[in-house]
Amino acid sequence: MPQAAAYATPSAGAPFAATTITRREPGPTEVLVDIAWAGICHSDIHTAREEWGKAHFPLVPGHEIAGTVAQVGPEVTKFAVGDRIGVGVFVDSCRECPECRSGNEQYCSGGGMVGTYNAKGRDGRWNDGGYSTAITVEQDYALRIPEGIDLAEAAPLLCAGITLYSPLRHWGAGPGKKVAIVGMGGLGHMGVKLAAAMGAEVTVLSQTLSKKEDGERFGATHYHATSDPETFRALARSFDLIISTVSADLDMNAFLGLLKVDGTLVNVGLPENPLSVRAGALAGARRSLAGSNIGGIAETQEMLDFCAEHGLGATVEKISGDEITAAYDRVVASDVRYRFVIDTSTFPAVS
Amino acid sequence: MPQAAAYATPSAGAPFAATTITRREPGPTEVLVDIAWAGICHSDIHTAREEWGKAHFPLVPGHEIAGTVAQVGPEVTKFAVGDRIGVGVFVDSCRECPECRSGNEQYCSGGGMVGTYNAKGRDGRWNDGGYSTAITVEQDYALRIPEGIDLAEAAPLLCAGITLYSPLRHWGAGPGKKVAIVGMGGLGHMGVKLAAAMGAEVTVLSQTLSKKEDGERFGATHYHATSDPETFRALARSFDLIISTVSADLDMNAFLGLLKVDGTLVNVGLPENPLSVRAGALAGARRSLAGSNIGGIAETQEMLDFCAEHGLGATVEKISGDEITAAYDRVVASDVRYRFVIDTSTFPAVS
Repeated sequence: MPQAAAYATPSAGAPFAATTITRREPGPTEVLVDIAWAGICHSDIHTAREEWGKAHFPLVPGHEIAGTVAQVGPEVTKFAVGDRIGVGVFVDSCRECPECRSGNEQYCSGGGMVGTYNAKGRDGRWNDGGYSTAITVEQDYALRIPEGIDLAEAAPLLCAGITLYSPLRHWGAGPGKKVAIVGMGGLGHMGVKLAAAMGAEVTVLSQTLSKKEDGERFGATHYHATSDPETFRALARSFDLIISTVSADLDMNAFLGLLKVDGTLVNVGLPENPLSVRAGALAGARRSLAGSNIGGIAETQEMLDFCAEHGLGATVEKISGDEITAAYDRVVASDVRYRFVIDTSTFPAVS
Repeated sequence: MPQAAAYATPSAGAPFAATTITRREPGPTEVLVDIAWAGICHSDIHTAREEWGKAHFPLVPGHEIAGTVAQVGPEVTKFAVGDRIGVGVFVDSCRECPECRSGNEQYCSGGGMVGTYNAKGRDGRWNDGGYSTAITVEQDYALRIPEGIDLAEAAPLLCAGITLYSPLRHWGAGPGKKVAIVGMGGLGHMGVKLAAAMGAEVTVLSQTLSKKEDGERFGATHYHATSDPETFRALARSFDLIISTVSADLDMNAFLGLLKVDGTLVNVGLPENPLSVRAGALAGARRSLAGSNIGGIAETQEMLDFCAEHGLGATVEKISGDEITAAYDRVVASDVRYRFVIDTSTFPAVS
């Protein structure tokens, strides 16, 4: 069985420490991936701190994975050794329900998608995630990372990238459309880059103007502070699409008021408290409040190809394995520009 | 100035009494309507009881109006004396904003639509509504009621009908689509008839099964009680579109769970309290929660033509003017099958 170096947390909120884990030998249609980079997603933190319920420990998080193929099973047709490869938020699903058959594996109704970590795979073992030097994955749930995207900048695309790409595409971001991105963090900065590359007119709505220059560099035409009440007056009925990447409690009715007739506000953050919405804020202009969760495998591939075509990647801060614990605190404090990626070459050699 | 018999309420919640009101002489592009029937909409009651804020008294409600043209202004081109005519929820709008120009006058951003009653018209006078024997209205804000729809059954189409028709069309109700209508009142019963005529597979979700036979007669294939928790288990992820006509506080998350991936729940009722929605109930299947408010003039005409083509009208209970006060209590008690229409021929002659 392949051994891999990894960083694990032994219990909710405890510091990460280097460890060694075992990966399974690739099955007939599986590949073994040499992981180069793993992004730190806010959901890793929620899970590791048990803010979303009980987790299985020791926990190796990580579902923004970029690397190269090290080994392939005998029936693998999609990848060859040395190929650039990515793994995202899930590594399996039922493959038979209407959602899986239509490329919406992320909404699998046949038991739900199988998470890359903190979930049990078909072999009955708990999955370990991407904070490690290797992972074994089914070829159908892996992605091809095109040449032209740096692997470190590609890793966050597997979650942050697709989380924004999917709703932008689904709700028709493109030329002639006014799109607002709420929040300029790991998700939001990708939303700005992607929506601008799609040809939409992009506005950032952030608490302050502190990241205004970055937002404009990423492709935003307008940048407004939501701490200023004037923002909500000046921009009333302005947008076709608003994507909120914020998990904090926002005044939904105020943001809905920024939508034109038939506009949609999509939450991709997952606020802990229920959203409170006046029925009139929707009915007054036939607005919609929606949610979206990552994207399917085919759409994730489409997103990676789109990013390569447009020269897009995440804007990252590279860290070593022993910086993960500190990085978590910095993510919670919004002190990262804009995504941490862990360099697995810094992990101690497997003994 | 034309005089009209009317029923007015002198103050919030007070009984209705017969009175005489003055209508304006039709302007160049206006018509004078002989009103035959006026429907009682729940919003009449909310307004008359000041449940939606201050109202202007004495108040003559009524925005579900059906009659015939009695007189036309010199530049009227759309109507002739004797034509069957309807007037709905609004009688004017700015005519210049993007919404008015695109046929969405109900969402007018140039000051908002002008209500048929409890609103000031361009002449600066408070409008009186349809509980009267006559009304003067701009031809562009009046509707043609096709032959083949009984006028009494046509009146409620001007609000209840279009309130359901517009979202059913907008969200694509038709063959192959599973549509649920929540509530079997004045709005809901029209939703069942219209969605079935559009070719959708229609389910009624009502508190009890007491109106099951009516629902099936109106075109529903399935009928479930929402008081039975099993309903929510059995119908999980079933519907493409749910239209809630209920103003009471519903468990939004439970109803959202009944939507398929990409399904939409549309509120056409206006619950007083904010809707409480888990972000995950939306994101878990890319669902939308939306609102919709009546429809534009062109779409209302389309709805009337559709109803004539399919032999549809409201199911009504006919009452006289002196029964309005009692009818309000019966509407609030859901004791009407399915819409009261007031017979203006019962009004005392103008003295």
